[in-house]
Amino acid sequence: MGGDYAPPEIVAGCIDVLRSGLSCKIILIGYPDVLKVEIRRHRGDTFPIEIEPCTSIIDMGESPIPALRRKPDSSIMVAYRMIKRKKADCVVSAGNTGASFIAGVTILGRLKGIERPAIAAPIPTKNGFCILLDVGANVDCKPNQLFQFGIMGKVYAEEVFGIENPRIGILNIGEEEGKGNRLTDRTFSLFSNSKLNFCGNIEGGDILKGKADVIVCDGFVGNSLLKFGEGVSEFIIDYVKNGNMMSKIGLLFLKSLFKSLYKKIDYSEYGGAPLLGINGISIICHGRSKRKAIANAIKAALSSVSHNIARKIEEDIIKVSDRH
Amino acid sequence: MGGDYAPPEIVAGCIDVLRSGLSCKIILIGYPDVLKVEIRRHRGDTFPIEIEPCTSIIDMGESPIPALRRKPDSSIMVAYRMIKRKKADCVVSAGNTGASFIAGVTILGRLKGIERPAIAAPIPTKNGFCILLDVGANVDCKPNQLFQFGIMGKVYAEEVFGIENPRIGILNIGEEEGKGNRLTDRTFSLFSNSKLNFCGNIEGGDILKGKADVIVCDGFVGNSLLKFGEGVSEFIIDYVKNGNMMSKIGLLFLKSLFKSLYKKIDYSEYGGAPLLGINGISIICHGRSKRKAIANAIKAALSSVSHNIARKIEEDIIKVSDRH
Repeated sequence: MGGDYAPPEIVAGCIDVLRSGLSCKIILIGYPDVLKVEIRRHRGDTFPIEIEPCTSIIDMGESPIPALRRKPDSSIMVAYRMIKRKKADCVVSAGNTGASFIAGVTILGRLKGIERPAIAAPIPTKNGFCILLDVGANVDCKPNQLFQFGIMGKVYAEEVFGIENPRIGILNIGEEEGKGNRLTDRTFSLFSNSKLNFCGNIEGGDILKGKADVIVCDGFVGNSLLKFGEGVSEFIIDYVKNGNMMSKIGLLFLKSLFKSLYKKIDYSEYGGAPLLGINGISIICHGRSKRKAIANAIKAALSSVSHNIARKIEEDIIKVSDRH
Repeated sequence: MGGDYAPPEIVAGCIDVLRSGLSCKIILIGYPDVLKVEIRRHRGDTFPIEIEPCTSIIDMGESPIPALRRKPDSSIMVAYRMIKRKKADCVVSAGNTGASFIAGVTILGRLKGIERPAIAAPIPTKNGFCILLDVGANVDCKPNQLFQFGIMGKVYAEEVFGIENPRIGILNIGEEEGKGNRLTDRTFSLFSNSKLNFCGNIEGGDILKGKADVIVCDGFVGNSLLKFGEGVSEFIIDYVKNGNMMSKIGLLFLKSLFKSLYKKIDYSEYGGAPLLGINGISIICHGRSKRKAIANAIKAALSSVSHNIARKIEEDIIKVSDRH
């Protein structure tokens, strides 16, 4: 029930996944009457879809902590509780990001050894993908937390994106060691002294050049960066769309190019952002997610489950701590 | 002598300014033989250009503090010393940003009451400009420093960009009060309790929408943001340029549109980034600056001098501290 286009687009995305032949069962959590109508509207009656009722929904704009307290049986709380009780394997939500994060951490708890779970965003680069984390869950981070983000991102890059021995970098304002602030400086030595495939500092302008497969940063920086990047592409696309007659003709020729560019920079292609470090699988989708984004998020969740992401993160964290 | 295209493009930019009829005298600091050849090559012999010799130059990649120590008579040091001795009114440099910042602060000193000088970047928005600061000089900031950045940015926006009663915002990961990290939270209350035209928190995605005229942030965040934004536009432009035959035809129709877009997002149009809070005028240009960028930076410097920016910042800082 969460997200700007819920529930129609969410239900449509679920049915798309089932229709594509992927073997899974989907549990929709929300108001049964509303959901039943949507399922019927999208001709999903024959698919393995269950409905789990809830009594409230957290709005997109609500402040997470008071909302979760006021609405203990909201859809997102019910969802995580089902994971806890092993009645479901993963949560996918396009609702309030803060609420999903806090509910996830509170109900499922952190993995052993993890200081702070993080939200990881897959970003398209010239030659593939890069996982940027944290992008908003932790606004004041410590060096060891960024170090752990690196390990979590590495596991996700390896398992879900199939990247071998991912290169891990630190987002920084200069490439040389010693650049940046206290946080990046101390994080640098943690990575240098580890056996991870550390590729040093990465500047903001080099992210899309594909210089690293995993880039760690404070959630404040990561969130500002992502949103600014979206703003820049919107700015450019708007500008081009609002041109004169001449440029409108040009756009006709460029249609297929722009379509593929759009596909490349469109977050909905990448299946949402995993919440890593919790004791379970959760994918957080952009509030603006439509059916394609939801379908891809479900696929990312299924892949995370089949690769046993949470366990692998825990193992890697223990391995690295043992070495220290 | 500083910058990727120095000295030819720097000298060309200077001569363009003088040729345009602006009344000023330009002092080029560098190796006289090299500069004389450039001046002649650009037919600048008849213009009011002086040459001030220096014995060394700080390279773009050098670490600022050791470089300044090793090269006390480098061009950038000579430049700031001329301001100090009242032999020049302002410095414009496309060289090593860190070196220019540290030399400026060390030689000219901070304005009375200013805790930390900052580098301010003018950014194009839908309907005009926005001044973002700090963009790299201060990587670990305190609330009062961000507050002072707001005052400095306001003065620059008013005086140089002619924006009346500029709206000041804080870069944050959410709009509501209480969002963000410790730094933004405390900065929020400083602005709320002031008589400045404070417009609250601004998210990364809203910068280009023109929701504020001045946006303050930590230099680490500002720098990462700017560089990522450049990366995103380069990514999109590269993608469009490398299309198939069809899209190449389309681009012919879009040429004038792209030209105007490029003009809008091109930093060289905005005359570089002022270093605010020091006891003098300094404009820091992008290392990649060519003649147009240099010419516009000189114009911004002249405008800062004629509006007496440094004094006005000092007055505003005193006014605000008196009120507290």
